[in-house]
Formats: sequence, C-alpha cells, structure tokens
Amino acid sequence: MEIAILGFGNIAKGVEELIFKNREKIKNITGKEVFVKTVLIKDTIKKREPFDKNIYFTDDFSKILEDKDIEIVIELTGNLDSAFYYISESMNKKKHIITANKAVVSKYFYKFYSLSLENNIAFLYEASVGGGVHIIKSIIEDLPINDIYHTRGILNGTCNFILSSMKDKDLSFDNALKLAQELGFAEIDPSDDILGLDTRRKLKILSSLIFGKKIDEKDIFTQGISKIKSIDIDILKDRNLKVKLIGEASRIDEKYSINVMPVALKQESIFYEVDNELNMISYSGNNISEVFFLGKGAGRYPTADAVLRDLIDVLLRNYIIFNPIEDKKINLSNDILKSSFYIRIPKECLSLIKDIIKEKIEYKDYIIAFTKEIKLSDMENLINKIDSDDYFFARISKE
Amino acid sequence: MEIAILGFGNIAKGVEELIFKNREKIKNITGKEVFVKTVLIKDTIKKREPFDKNIYFTDDFSKILEDKDIEIVIELTGNLDSAFYYISESMNKKKHIITANKAVVSKYFYKFYSLSLENNIAFLYEASVGGGVHIIKSIIEDLPINDIYHTRGILNGTCNFILSSMKDKDLSFDNALKLAQELGFAEIDPSDDILGLDTRRKLKILSSLIFGKKIDEKDIFTQGISKIKSIDIDILKDRNLKVKLIGEASRIDEKYSINVMPVALKQESIFYEVDNELNMISYSGNNISEVFFLGKGAGRYPTADAVLRDLIDVLLRNYIIFNPIEDKKINLSNDILKSSFYIRIPKECLSLIKDIIKEKIEYKDYIIAFTKEIKLSDMENLINKIDSDDYFFARISKE
Repeated sequence: MEIAILGFGNIAKGVEELIFKNREKIKNITGKEVFVKTVLIKDTIKKREPFDKNIYFTDDFSKILEDKDIEIVIELTGNLDSAFYYISESMNKKKHIITANKAVVSKYFYKFYSLSLENNIAFLYEASVGGGVHIIKSIIEDLPINDIYHTRGILNGTCNFILSSMKDKDLSFDNALKLAQELGFAEIDPSDDILGLDTRRKLKILSSLIFGKKIDEKDIFTQGISKIKSIDIDILKDRNLKVKLIGEASRIDEKYSINVMPVALKQESIFYEVDNELNMISYSGNNISEVFFLGKGAGRYPTADAVLRDLIDVLLRNYIIFNPIEDKKINLSNDILKSSFYIRIPKECLSLIKDIIKEKIEYKDYIIAFTKEIKLSDMENLINKIDSDDYFFARISKE
Repeated sequence: MEIAILGFGNIAKGVEELIFKNREKIKNITGKEVFVKTVLIKDTIKKREPFDKNIYFTDDFSKILEDKDIEIVIELTGNLDSAFYYISESMNKKKHIITANKAVVSKYFYKFYSLSLENNIAFLYEASVGGGVHIIKSIIEDLPINDIYHTRGILNGTCNFILSSMKDKDLSFDNALKLAQELGFAEIDPSDDILGLDTRRKLKILSSLIFGKKIDEKDIFTQGISKIKSIDIDILKDRNLKVKLIGEASRIDEKYSINVMPVALKQESIFYEVDNELNMISYSGNNISEVFFLGKGAGRYPTADAVLRDLIDVLLRNYIIFNPIEDKKINLSNDILKSSFYIRIPKECLSLIKDIIKEKIEYKDYIIAFTKEIKLSDMENLINKIDSDDYFFARISKE
C-alpha cells in the first residue's frame, strides 16, 4: 500500500523512519507491504535525507491527489488552511486520512467525519491529542457502551514544563520559557501554547467526541499561563498547591461546561506529580468511572508512534466509519463550575473582589486573595472589569 | 450473533446487563445483533434474574459446545481447571473466546494463543488485567512498532486498598483486610491477593506479551503483603515513604527480571497517589517511553466494560490472529535488580543483615533496618535464612 506524507518536519521524519524500519513487522501483522511513495514539501531545493531513498519529494500537491496508487495520506504540516484543503481534497479522492494536526482537526472535526462517512474512508487523528498518550481510540471504543460525561487533562507539555521549572528550579516565567525553548519543548513563537489555545484545541477534540455535538472553539472559556509570576507559584507552594494548566469538560444534567485555565492542585490530586513535559488525560463513563492515560504528550517518536498505530488500523481495516457528532451545537455555560480561586490583581482593583475575599495578602502593587466559592461566570465578569493585563488567577481544585 | 456466558457471578451479571442495555448501540456500530443465548451455571435450582428473560441457563457445558449457533464464548467462571477445559474445547469448535479469568490466562497463555492461531478465532482477555484499565490491547497495538522492554504496576486493588487503609486510617493489617472484605474489595479467602499470587498472574500475562517468550509463574520472585504490620507503615510514613505492592518486569541486555514485592515509594513517584482500589500499570517502549494507565482495577462494571470492548472487537473482526509468544522459556535472574531495602526481622536474626545495614532501629523484639544497595538475589538468600515467618521487607524505590 502506498502512502503520501504531507510535510517533512520533526514528526514526519519520525513517521518515515518508523515505517521504513518496521516494514517487515507491519507486514507480518497486517499482511500488507507499505511504503512512503511521495512527500509534500515547500522547499524543493533543501537536501532531504529520508531512510527510504526511493521517496519522491514534491511541492506539487496534485502529484499526490491524482496518484491513484496512493491510498493513505498522512497529514503532518501543522498548518491550518492548507491542511484543510489537503485533507478534504484527499478524502474526496477516497484516500484514508491520518493526521497529527490538532488545529485542523479541532476546527473541522464535524466536516472531516462527514467526509469520512460520505467517502467510506478512515479519518484517524490519534496523534493530534497527547502524542504518545493514546486516548482517542480508547474513547471511541468506550462510546458505544458508556455514557461518557467528563474529560480533563494536562494537555500541553510546553505549559507543564514551564510551570514545573518555575516551581522546581525557581525560574521566572521568561526564563522557564527560554529553557523550554532551548530544550525543544517550546516553539520560537510559543503563544498558542502559553495562551492556552493548543490546550483548547485538544479539549475541543476530546469533548466533541464524548458529547457528540458541535462545539465552537471560541465558546470555550480559556485562560493560559502567560500572566503567571513567581510570586503566584511561591504563595501556592507554601500551601502545598501546585499550578497546572488543565482543560476540563463536564456534562451535568444536560448542561455543559468546557474550560481551560490554571488550576491549583492539592498534593493528593492524581495530577499533582505529572510534571515537566508529561501529559495526563482522563475520561469518565458510567461503567468505567474515571480512567487516566499518562505519558509523553509530544516529541518525534511518541507522536510518530501514534501515527503508526493509526496506520496499522487502516491496513487491518480496524476502524469504524461513523460520524459521532450530531449537526447540533452545544450551549456552554460558565454557571455550572463553582470553585474558590486564587487571584492576584493590581491594588487599585481591590473593590472588584471585596465581596468574595476569604483571605487577602498585600504584595507590592498587588492584592493577592483566596476567594470564597464563586461561579466561573462571576470570575469571568470580574477579570473583564480589570483595567490591566497584569493579573493572574487559578481555580483551587477540590481534590 | 449468539453468545454463551460461562458463570453468572458478579462480572457475568454485569456483562449480561451491558449486552442487553447496549444492544441497539452495538448494532449501530458493528451492524450486528448480539444476544446471550445460554449461560453455564452450577446450581440450576437457584433463581436467576437476567435482564434478557430468554436466556437459557444450564449446567451442561455440551449444550454450549455443541450449539453451532453460539459463535462467541465469554468465560467468567474464575475457576482454573474447568475453565481451561471450557476454553480449549470451545476454541477447538471454532468459537471465539473472551475471558476475564487471569488464573487460566496466565497459566495457559501460550496454549490459548496456539489454539487461536490453529482455529483462526479470537482469543481476547482484556478484562483479566486491570479491569477498567484497558492496557492489553494497547500493548498488542504497540508491539509491532516498539521494542517494549519494561512493564510495572499496582495490579491488585485488594492489596492497594489494604495498604491505603493501614496508612490513612491507622488500621492494623487484620482490620484493614476486614474493611476491604466488608466493602467488597476482598474475597472471603483473600490469600491469592495478599500473598501476591494475583499480582503475579497479571504480571505474567503482561510480561509474556511484551517479552514474547514463555515464563514460568513459579520463577517469578513473589512477596505479598500479608506480613506487613502497622510499625512498618509508620516508620516508612515518617520518611515520606508509602508502601505499594508492585509487579515489575524488565529486560536489560537480554537479561530478564520479573518480580512482585512491596515497594516503598517516594512522594515524587507517579504511583504515590494511586490509592485504595485503583490500579496503575505502565509499559515502556523505545518510541513511546513509559506510558501509564490508571483506573478501577476491578468491580462489576469496569470489568464488564473490558469484556464488552473485546466483544465489539470480535463483532468488527478487529483482532489480530497471531501468537506473540515463541516456544522458548525465559531465564529469570534476581541479580539484575539492585536496591536498598527496608527490612524488619526478629532481633535474633541481626547477624544475617549486619554487613548490609545502613541504618538500624530497635523496636520490641525486632530489628528494623534500611540496607545498603544489594541484589534482589541477596535479599532472597537472606529471607530464606530467617527461621520465622515474622518479618517484612520492602524495596526502596529510587524515584
């Protein structure tokens, strides 16, 4: 079976390597010989060093689209608009799709499932959430027999690494980010990670799947970690609390809450020791209670491994062609989530929080407070009134 | 498709209920209608209350074996010898096998895989390890593309519950066991759990699969938790160490170490907060590093969920017929594992440990000590020389 890979970055190189090195084993298991025939790249002059020397590199997508022998397209560009074009066109040509591109999967989730159903081909995206943490297939397999009502997780290794480094190495946010960049855990432009957008995409994919309805990315309450300072880490640390960026989606009595924000965890929390670049994701269903998956959320080989598992499923025809999503939008509510919060705001904003304060600390030009239990919507109103970008808050986890 | 269930205990009732309640959803996904036709029981007089009122209860296995319409046999007896007979006979009649019976899977692992290959039918046993923690299929899917060299886990909810209760509720071993029995987390005869035999069976299944070779259960070094006392918990707690019963298998330079024993974990360990009846299991491969699976390791619905996932895989033909095991035995070595140990022995045995003591505490009629780093084989020799059953030891985890 002939494959095309779109893109030849870090993950794509790993995928090409694993396909090349495991060809014999894959044949033993699936009975099928696979090889990468064509790779789509932008720069045709740059020297490429694939393991399989017969690969044809091209910047012309039609060479893949019109090639009837290519039955599987592995999309690894990381781009949004062009990836949508590549994927949808390939699906219309009845080519199976495997992708690690969370941005495009998140945005066009419903559309891709519709195209998969229409064209009777696989649409697999295990690598788009959690890298080496293989959770998507597990959810899909539990869907027919469980009422899945909850998912949560540390979904972004970059943020987790930065927060761990700030706490354990006493680094400032900027220095922790720099370290993450040096070690390859953060991109040169880290905004999607530190603003929580990457976590939001992954959470949208997970919650679309479990709730079976359309979700608008922009409806998801999202607060990243870019505003955190060492003082926040230190004060929370003194109380044995550790901050993690957590995405969480719940359905309670047919009301839906989906949000991304920093959460201060107690030591007893199962997420507490999930540090550095690790991801941990869970889902809860009526049979299984909460099940957790933990591992490396990114990186060449863990992510390539997820792609290869999808590939083997295509070869074995181990996939279900269905659209898990109704053509119906979820109305999200920030009224459902009630919690105490840690909050740091400029001194002059004290009046905004005076009715909800449980405990107050003055620090330099800030008021730092622990609040009573309030609704997330109240917190949202509150931060919208702060006339400054210089604030931080974290939900205090009940466990 | 018609199904027979062998046994009608706790798990079997859950399986019958889930099949009955999810029939429509299963049909939507798989295109196949399934129902339980026959259930094998011992006591035909006892009143049975299945959800599906058409089920035929019988104590005559031949009614199942000779029924050509029954294509799938779900073995849930918990028995060893009769289960082996039921499973092997069913396989020879080309019936697919799904089982939750770790004792029989562990003992006849190689044989069942051979029969599966011979008769071209599925042999699935997800529910035999970790209940709602679905790890077996994930390992099978990672095998063709990873070199998996390590697995470890808290594999027995009964032991974990007892150890958690001793630590958190200050209970003696006997009272913790009683509580576990009252809450349904321990059997009336708990020996298989507290002696580590249940953990050993699950570890044998996991390590046979990852190493691809035959393993003798009795070659696995196994120490349970039945000898632990509150003093052990307390002394370790004072040093922020928490005891868990851990099964672990490693391959290092083609040498194999497989063992079950109490391990004293540091607070930073990812296993540290896995308390009560929870299970956590991991495996490590060259692409994926270590991936962890955490959830309820037992109970009616989590286990029934695993059985139903296997059932759906049979219906969809989502299974690989292969024998992952070579007809070759692994030689285990207790020389590979080196560690410090916590040990409590009768005072009069002091001479046995005098050369390896790092720190010593005298308590009543005991010597309690933390040892230097020694080989597991040295520890084995040592305990063989203790002329009493009144001792306890735990490996001190490095993380």
